[in-house]
Amino acid sequence: MITVNSQLDTLSGELIAAYKKLAPATLGHILETAMESDIQALWKPIKLVGPALTVQTYPQITSAVAAALEIARPGDVLVINRGDDRRHATTGEIGCLGYMELGIAGLVTDGPVADQVAIARMEFPVFSRGSVAMTGKTGGWGIEWGGVNVPVTVGGVVVHPGDMVFADDDGVLVASPEEAREHLAFVQEKEEWEYWVRGRIEQGWTISQCRAERPDPMTKVTIGTINR
Amino acid sequence: MITVNSQLDTLSGELIAAYKKLAPATLGHILETAMESDIQALWKPIKLVGPALTVQTYPQITSAVAAALEIARPGDVLVINRGDDRRHATTGEIGCLGYMELGIAGLVTDGPVADQVAIARMEFPVFSRGSVAMTGKTGGWGIEWGGVNVPVTVGGVVVHPGDMVFADDDGVLVASPEEAREHLAFVQEKEEWEYWVRGRIEQGWTISQCRAERPDPMTKVTIGTINR
Amino acid sequence: MITVNSQLDTLSGELIAAYKKLAPATLGHILETAMESDIQALWKPIKLVGPALTVQTYPQITSAVAAALEIARPGDVLVINRGDDRRHATTGEIGCLGYMELGIAGLVTDGPVADQVAIARMEFPVFSRGSVAMTGKTGGWGIEWGGVNVPVTVGGVVVHPGDMVFADDDGVLVASPEEAREHLAFVQEKEEWEYWVRGRIEQGWTISQCRAERPDPMTKVTIGTINR
Amino acid sequence: MITVNSQLDTLSGELIAAYKKLAPATLGHILETAMESDIQALWKPIKLVGPALTVQTYPQITSAVAAALEIARPGDVLVINRGDDRRHATTGEIGCLGYMELGIAGLVTDGPVADQVAIARMEFPVFSRGSVAMTGKTGGWGIEWGGVNVPVTVGGVVVHPGDMVFADDDGVLVASPEEAREHLAFVQEKEEWEYWVRGRIEQGWTISQCRAERPDPMTKVTIGTINR
Amino acid sequence: MITVNSQLDTLSGELIAAYKKLAPATLGHILETAMESDIQALWKPIKLVGPALTVQTYPQITSAVAAALEIARPGDVLVINRGDDRRHATTGEIGCLGYMELGIAGLVTDGPVADQVAIARMEFPVFSRGSVAMTGKTGGWGIEWGGVNVPVTVGGVVVHPGDMVFADDDGVLVASPEEAREHLAFVQEKEEWEYWVRGRIEQGWTISQCRAERPDPMTKVTIGTINR
Amino acid sequence: MITVNSQLDTLSGELIAAYKKLAPATLGHILETAMESDIQALWKPIKLVGPALTVQTYPQITSAVAAALEIARPGDVLVINRGDDRRHATTGEIGCLGYMELGIAGLVTDGPVADQVAIARMEFPVFSRGSVAMTGKTGGWGIEWGGVNVPVTVGGVVVHPGDMVFADDDGVLVASPEEAREHLAFVQEKEEWEYWVRGRIEQGWTISQCRAERPDPMTKVTIGTINR
Repeated sequence: MITVNSQLDTLSGELIAAYKKLAPATLGHILETAMESDIQALWKPIKLVGPALTVQTYPQITSAVAAALEIARPGDVLVINRGDDRRHATTGEIGCLGYMELGIAGLVTDGPVADQVAIARMEFPVFSRGSVAMTGKTGGWGIEWGGVNVPVTVGGVVVHPGDMVFADDDGVLVASPEEAREHLAFVQEKEEWEYWVRGRIEQGWTISQCRAERPDPMTKVTIGTINR
Repeated sequence: MITVNSQLDTLSGELIAAYKKLAPATLGHILETAMESDIQALWKPIKLVGPALTVQTYPQITSAVAAALEIARPGDVLVINRGDDRRHATTGEIGCLGYMELGIAGLVTDGPVADQVAIARMEFPVFSRGSVAMTGKTGGWGIEWGGVNVPVTVGGVVVHPGDMVFADDDGVLVASPEEAREHLAFVQEKEEWEYWVRGRIEQGWTISQCRAERPDPMTKVTIGTINR
Repeated sequence: MITVNSQLDTLSGELIAAYKKLAPATLGHILETAMESDIQALWKPIKLVGPALTVQTYPQITSAVAAALEIARPGDVLVINRGDDRRHATTGEIGCLGYMELGIAGLVTDGPVADQVAIARMEFPVFSRGSVAMTGKTGGWGIEWGGVNVPVTVGGVVVHPGDMVFADDDGVLVASPEEAREHLAFVQEKEEWEYWVRGRIEQGWTISQCRAERPDPMTKVTIGTINR
Repeated sequence: MITVNSQLDTLSGELIAAYKKLAPATLGHILETAMESDIQALWKPIKLVGPALTVQTYPQITSAVAAALEIARPGDVLVINRGDDRRHATTGEIGCLGYMELGIAGLVTDGPVADQVAIARMEFPVFSRGSVAMTGKTGGWGIEWGGVNVPVTVGGVVVHPGDMVFADDDGVLVASPEEAREHLAFVQEKEEWEYWVRGRIEQGWTISQCRAERPDPMTKVTIGTINR
Repeated sequence: MITVNSQLDTLSGELIAAYKKLAPATLGHILETAMESDIQALWKPIKLVGPALTVQTYPQITSAVAAALEIARPGDVLVINRGDDRRHATTGEIGCLGYMELGIAGLVTDGPVADQVAIARMEFPVFSRGSVAMTGKTGGWGIEWGGVNVPVTVGGVVVHPGDMVFADDDGVLVASPEEAREHLAFVQEKEEWEYWVRGRIEQGWTISQCRAERPDPMTKVTIGTINR
Repeated sequence: MITVNSQLDTLSGELIAAYKKLAPATLGHILETAMESDIQALWKPIKLVGPALTVQTYPQITSAVAAALEIARPGDVLVINRGDDRRHATTGEIGCLGYMELGIAGLVTDGPVADQVAIARMEFPVFSRGSVAMTGKTGGWGIEWGGVNVPVTVGGVVVHPGDMVFADDDGVLVASPEEAREHLAFVQEKEEWEYWVRGRIEQGWTISQCRAERPDPMTKVTIGTINR
């Protein structure tokens, strides 16, 4: 049996659009929910923002992913826990074509994937523990096991259904919808400041001169709380 | 700031009392929420059952534990995520005395602990990544950071506040309150069968003869769903 | 489908009986085939010697073990690769009762096991990555996958069907039948020398005096070849 | 002493040529013998197919490699186990020049290598655990230890002498000669289908439409057996 | 060639005698130099205090240990880095007899050891990554490589020659001679307080009552500096 | 409190300039002090040479880095131990701008970093455990803890203040000032020979012909000693 919890609207299109112009590491000045550094993009440069559609599989039995696809909505980000298996791919080219057909925005998984060249060519965003030349073998067994839209752990972080997945070349950060809304203004202000700094640096300023002229927005921030 | 979510009554005294007579590995025939094998009891034989009072700390900064103690109730099991640190103890003898004063039933943590001899002598139940001769150094820093009664990941498993922690010499299993209630009868029937088997084996029966005489209750079970 | 290769007679009863009086670490002065130090006996003191009945499972699907049991002979040592899974037990009390009914001498596995107290009480020899409170869930799925009497890797060592498994409190060593026969005399001579040394040490000799009186048999050994 | 087993003809030129046009991950739908995802090509894009010339070294003592070179034949793929050492290179630029002189097709090793820029420029295929700035120091010690053409374990997989090494940007897969022959037709059919799918996708079809028009050859496959 | 730096008198007999009555974890409230939790005593209960005689070996080639033995003084603690090898023992029963003959106080190593039963019976203090049934094979090769009395890293901690090794059932802590002298009074005061607390607890006091009656000496401590 | 040891002049400008034309892996034929292969350059091609300004931080509390910056001199290489944390960045774009303002030559750390795209664009040399989308959160806590110019362990190697950090696309090697001076001539001779070999190879020679014509300088080297 596979538990499938229903989809919730957690993130507005405006919020997602706003974060698409920003960097995860900037929000990561505030949060504690970045995944471990070995979960990386299969191709770069990359930016991925969207609500998590979480999947818990039995380690090598990915039938729960099929159950997730039945309720997937355009823009969802699949977040799949496979128990840290390093020898079987979570998915490959054909699997990603299926995700793309449904409008799924990308995939984050604690396993490796196959067909990395094809996936890069298709520009489907995948964050994984690299690649491997083998899939699981469970497609034909008809085993129904797992959970969809349940909390999962990927890369050392608990991900809830509907959390904002926010990832780029640096790696993957997760934020609750509340955190995403609360900190948007700070992230925008911080990145504007960084943009201004880059301009000054190009003109020959030092970072000290920049800071003296215009303080780093970090100095105003009260570091928040880990709420997961 | 430390988020502290309020306590909920999730497990009846009768349920806890019933599981205290049973073994986690028997319930583990049904569930998928056992912690990794390197999280083990500091002393054996041992049995620990109770609702999880979860704590997320900043890796070496355990001030959130103090916040948890303020709301702890007798019978609670502290479940503390410290980010897999292997060199600083989560707690030691004096810390455990404080937990015992509050009636806390035991501790499960992904870090090591100090003072293992004293803790064993006091018979305070601790499941940890072994022991180490050093604590964190953050007591006097006054840093307020972390979360209490938030979902945490320990030993590869997401633990929710109020989940039943069920542990013995084999290791730690976690069950939602619903799972704990739903499967109690099966666990009791299975262990009665095992008790009967042990008696027959002592009389010289083989396990095949036992099974022929009285089927293993496992044969009647429909394996359930991972709902976390 | 599960490949099952037939059983071969590789080790005489005399050879096994001879090694039962000896220590793996003594043979380990000659060979390079000791398993990693985290594969340890579930209970001690212990001694296990016998021919390997190897099993390759799909990581959490242990149906190939059932196929192995159909051809198991008294004295066989089950050597089971489960892909380094740390959260699901390879077996438990009831499983071991089945092995004992068939006269199987013991079990070596790269996974943890459940029911460690019962297994210790039954004195069934198990070498594993410790214990855990959960089994795999594949019993009822009827999946036929894996191999029996094929080369497997456990603890960093390739084990061939019929190899001599030789284990005690220190850990597990593997030897080909040829190696077992070739080096028996050395192991016996070395242990006789060590026995003599222990006697002298108790009488107040130093190890230097012992060596001067009677040279360590190691000095005569030409270290051999890794042949696997 | 170094055991050197003789070379066997296991793979025809036609078979190797056929697989050179195909992808390991496609054969990996059938087999269970892909190496762990951290064994990756030093440069990409890459394709490597050939029979394994296996080498077991004493961890930092690579003299057995020299013994392997004495029997190497053009087209062989060196598969070298060095005990998971992460700080000493298995080889470097000059070593690879020696392999190239013998016509060796490539190298797969569980250690890192040095001189990655030079090796990429030379386009010698190397699959390793990345790179490091240091070699082993054993060249001048004259130690003879190890095995050539013995089963070795690399990346979690047992590799037999003469097995087909089949690797590309995704990673390394190993197949027995029988498996390589048995599954060639499936791999070809599956890749033809994938080629056809890519064409349709470019024309705007969805993967569902493709599958409706022409079924995935996977649906006809009976998943086989792990025979190592 | 093996560099051998000369021995220094760093710790007085009085200092060592004083710490023998104390616990590493108490000093570990002040320092940051505890080794990782998987380096544990081979037998317990145990207490080890003495100056470090450090040895850096080539991973499986332990000839530098022989060079260390030539300058070892009674009371020294061998601290041996072997590069995290998990399959070859650093030493065994006969090796430890040699250390005991020289009056060496104990051994700390990042490898496993062999002959754990004999070592426990001899009560020679060994802290290691457990046990294994195989030694290195380099005794007869005459390779001279390594360093004695050079800084080494064991269990994540830099150990200097002459540092105080301070270990018990909890694990291993390292202190510079200055740290050992500076903090002795605090450790004694803290343990006296803990002794007093234990007495009160036995009389039915709570830890809160103890703290109210007599403050924990920790409250007076200014946490120091990591000076290595 | 943060211990800050004073800066020493250990490496002449000529020595650094000479090594900038050479490759770490060539010096790594002599030394044993290469860092583990997962510490890699954030961007390539790269070359970094300079004296180590070492920093020991409390794992997630990087205030000691600020203390190091106060004494940093142009050309220094920051070598920062953060306790193998894989989820918090040691630094990011703005931090690196600060290092560049001081003329710091580069950074080596056992943690990941953030802002990898910006750092690559700025061409500031960073060797790290990859990237992550989150920094530590300790900036505003005012905690003074750690050490500057103390021995630290990074990537399995002890680094002393003033040691030569020598790194490129292959990874990071560390040499004492004495080693750097002693072996310069060998490294130059070896690389001249390799340059000559490359020329001959392009003309169609084999490596055997090259060696016959002009012996590899390695054949004249007496492999030295590990002195750390």
